[in-house]
Amino acid sequence: MLNELVRILREGRRFVITTHKHPDGDGLGAMFALGRSLRIAGKEAVLLSEEPLTPPFDRMRGAETVLQNYTPNGEPVTLILLDCADFDRPGKVVESFKGDAEVVNIDHHFTNTFFGRYNWVEPECSSTGELIYRLLQHAGFPIDREIAENLFIAIQSDTGSFRYENATAAAFSTAAALVGTYGVRPSRCARLILDEYPCARLYLLRSALGTLETHLRGKIAMVTVSLDMYREAHASTSDSDTFVDYPRFLSGVEIGVLVRQTAEDAYKFSLRSNDFADVAALAKQFGGGGHKRAAGFDAQGRLADIKLLFLGAAAEMLEAHAA
Amino acid sequence: MLNELVRILREGRRFVITTHKHPDGDGLGAMFALGRSLRIAGKEAVLLSEEPLTPPFDRMRGAETVLQNYTPNGEPVTLILLDCADFDRPGKVVESFKGDAEVVNIDHHFTNTFFGRYNWVEPECSSTGELIYRLLQHAGFPIDREIAENLFIAIQSDTGSFRYENATAAAFSTAAALVGTYGVRPSRCARLILDEYPCARLYLLRSALGTLETHLRGKIAMVTVSLDMYREAHASTSDSDTFVDYPRFLSGVEIGVLVRQTAEDAYKFSLRSNDFADVAALAKQFGGGGHKRAAGFDAQGRLADIKLLFLGAAAEMLEAHAA
Repeated sequence: MLNELVRILREGRRFVITTHKHPDGDGLGAMFALGRSLRIAGKEAVLLSEEPLTPPFDRMRGAETVLQNYTPNGEPVTLILLDCADFDRPGKVVESFKGDAEVVNIDHHFTNTFFGRYNWVEPECSSTGELIYRLLQHAGFPIDREIAENLFIAIQSDTGSFRYENATAAAFSTAAALVGTYGVRPSRCARLILDEYPCARLYLLRSALGTLETHLRGKIAMVTVSLDMYREAHASTSDSDTFVDYPRFLSGVEIGVLVRQTAEDAYKFSLRSNDFADVAALAKQFGGGGHKRAAGFDAQGRLADIKLLFLGAAAEMLEAHAA
Repeated sequence: MLNELVRILREGRRFVITTHKHPDGDGLGAMFALGRSLRIAGKEAVLLSEEPLTPPFDRMRGAETVLQNYTPNGEPVTLILLDCADFDRPGKVVESFKGDAEVVNIDHHFTNTFFGRYNWVEPECSSTGELIYRLLQHAGFPIDREIAENLFIAIQSDTGSFRYENATAAAFSTAAALVGTYGVRPSRCARLILDEYPCARLYLLRSALGTLETHLRGKIAMVTVSLDMYREAHASTSDSDTFVDYPRFLSGVEIGVLVRQTAEDAYKFSLRSNDFADVAALAKQFGGGGHKRAAGFDAQGRLADIKLLFLGAAAEMLEAHAA
C-alpha cells in the first residue's frame, strides 16, 4: 500500500486534503505537513476543514492556508482523508466529491471502515502524523522544519506527550529524528498546542473540579462542565479538552469521564480507560466510537437519565471483566 | 571520563549509591537502575536516601531496597552521588563518608561543583537517567526490563514527559531503545509516577487555583498552597509537586511560580520559565538554585514581604531582558 501511495503522490497534480470535524493536533499536523510537502514538490494542495480553526490550532503553522469549502472544477483530483475512521467524519466539505474523486484514506483508528479507493490504515501506529512521516520518507518527498514541527505536534498531541498506550518505540524514534534532524523543539510544540492557555481555562478547571464524582466503588470518576461554567469563566469548549485526564488519573479509576454540555439538553461524553476497559465498545452502545483507551459519544436528554444509562452499561462492562 | 567510570564499575566490589534529598523520579530511577545492574553483575550495592520514600516514589521497583543509613565498616567503598549538584545535596547520609570513600559524581546540573574524585557532569543531557543508560551500555553492564523501566521513568519525569527544553533527540532515542528493546510501557511508567494520584490532590488543586495571581503585566503568574489547604484536602506536599505548571502555562507568562508553605513562617518557591528568564540565577539571589528553566529556593518570614522582594528581583530580570 505504501508503494501504491507513493505512486499516487508522485503522479497526481492536484490534491485536496482534509481531516475530521473538531480537528485535533494529529489530523491537522498531518494535513499541514502533507500539504506543504506536496506544494514544495510542485503540486497543488488544497486543505479543507468544515469549521474555521479555533485556538490553539489556529496557531499552528499552515493554519492560514485552510479553506472552509472548495468546489472541484471537474479536473481530476485526489481527495486524501487523514485521521478519519469513515468518509463522513470531515462533514459537509467532502460531500461534493462523492463518487468523483480518487479517495485516499490514511488513518490509525482500528474502527476504520476502509471507505477509500486506497486505504492505508495502521491501528498499531501512534498517530496519523507518524504515518505521514513514513510516507514522505519513503517517497523521498521534502521535509523541512515546518513540516517536521507539524508532524511532531501530531505525534505529541495524540500520545498525550508520549505517555498514552500509543507511545510506541516507533513514535519515540520518529520524534528523535524530527528533533535531531530537523531541529524541532518539543517544548515549543508543547507550548503551542498543549501547554498554553488563557486564565479562563484555569477558572473553568476550578469549577469543573468541584463536580468530581466517583461511581462503582471508585472504578469510574466523572467531571462535568455545564454551559453556565463556560459562560462564567469566559471559556470555550476547547478549554476543557484535556479535563478528562483529571478523573482518569485518580488512584483506582479504570474509566475517566468528562461530560460537556453542548446545548440545553445535549451532552458530549469523553471516555478514557487506564488498563483494560474497551471504551470504544462502550461509546458504540451510545452511537459513538474511538479507540480502545479513548472514545466518546454525544447524547440528548436529561443529564441524570443519560448518566444512569451510561453507568449501567459501564458497570456491565467492568463486571464482565471482573468475572 | 566515561571509560574511567567503566573501569571503576568493573573493578569496584562495594558501592554506595545515593541521590539528593526530596528525591525525584530522575535521581531515584537512576539510582535503582544502577544499583540493580551492579548487583546482577555480582557487586554489592547499597542504596541510601535520607528520608523514607513517599508516594509516588515508594511504588517504583527497587524502592524496597533503599536504606536510611549505612555505616561503612572500613572496607573500601565507592560512593556514587546521582543527580546532585554538590556534595551536601544527599544530606546527612553521606557525612560518614567524608574524606574516606572514592566519590563519583554523575549529574546533569550545570551548577555542579565537581566535588567528586571522578566527575561526569553533562548539563546538555536530559537527565541523570540518560547518563546511567549510556554508562551501562558503554560498560556492557546488564539492563533488564526493571532497569529499563527505571531509566525510562528518570527521563520521562525529568523532561515533564518529553515536553520541557531538555527533551532532546538523545532523550527520545534513548526512550525508543528502552521501549523497543526492553519492553518498557510508557503509559505504565507515567501512571506510576506522573499520572496517578488520590482525590486529595484534586481537592488541593481546586483550592490552589483559587489563589492564582498575576504580576508584572502578566509576565509572572503565581499560585500559593498554604498549610491550611494541605490540611483541609488531606493532601501531602508531594501532591502539589506539579502545580507550578498551571501558572507557568498561562498565555503571556514568562515565569510561573508555586509557593508552598512548609511551616508557620517558611515557604518554598518553585520557579519555571518559558522562554528566556534564567530562574536559576533568580533563585540564587535567594539562596537557592537549579536549572535555567526550573529552579527554586526556601525563604523564612512573612509571605507578603518575601513576595515583594521576589517580585522586585524578577521585575529587574525581566526589564533587563526587555532593554
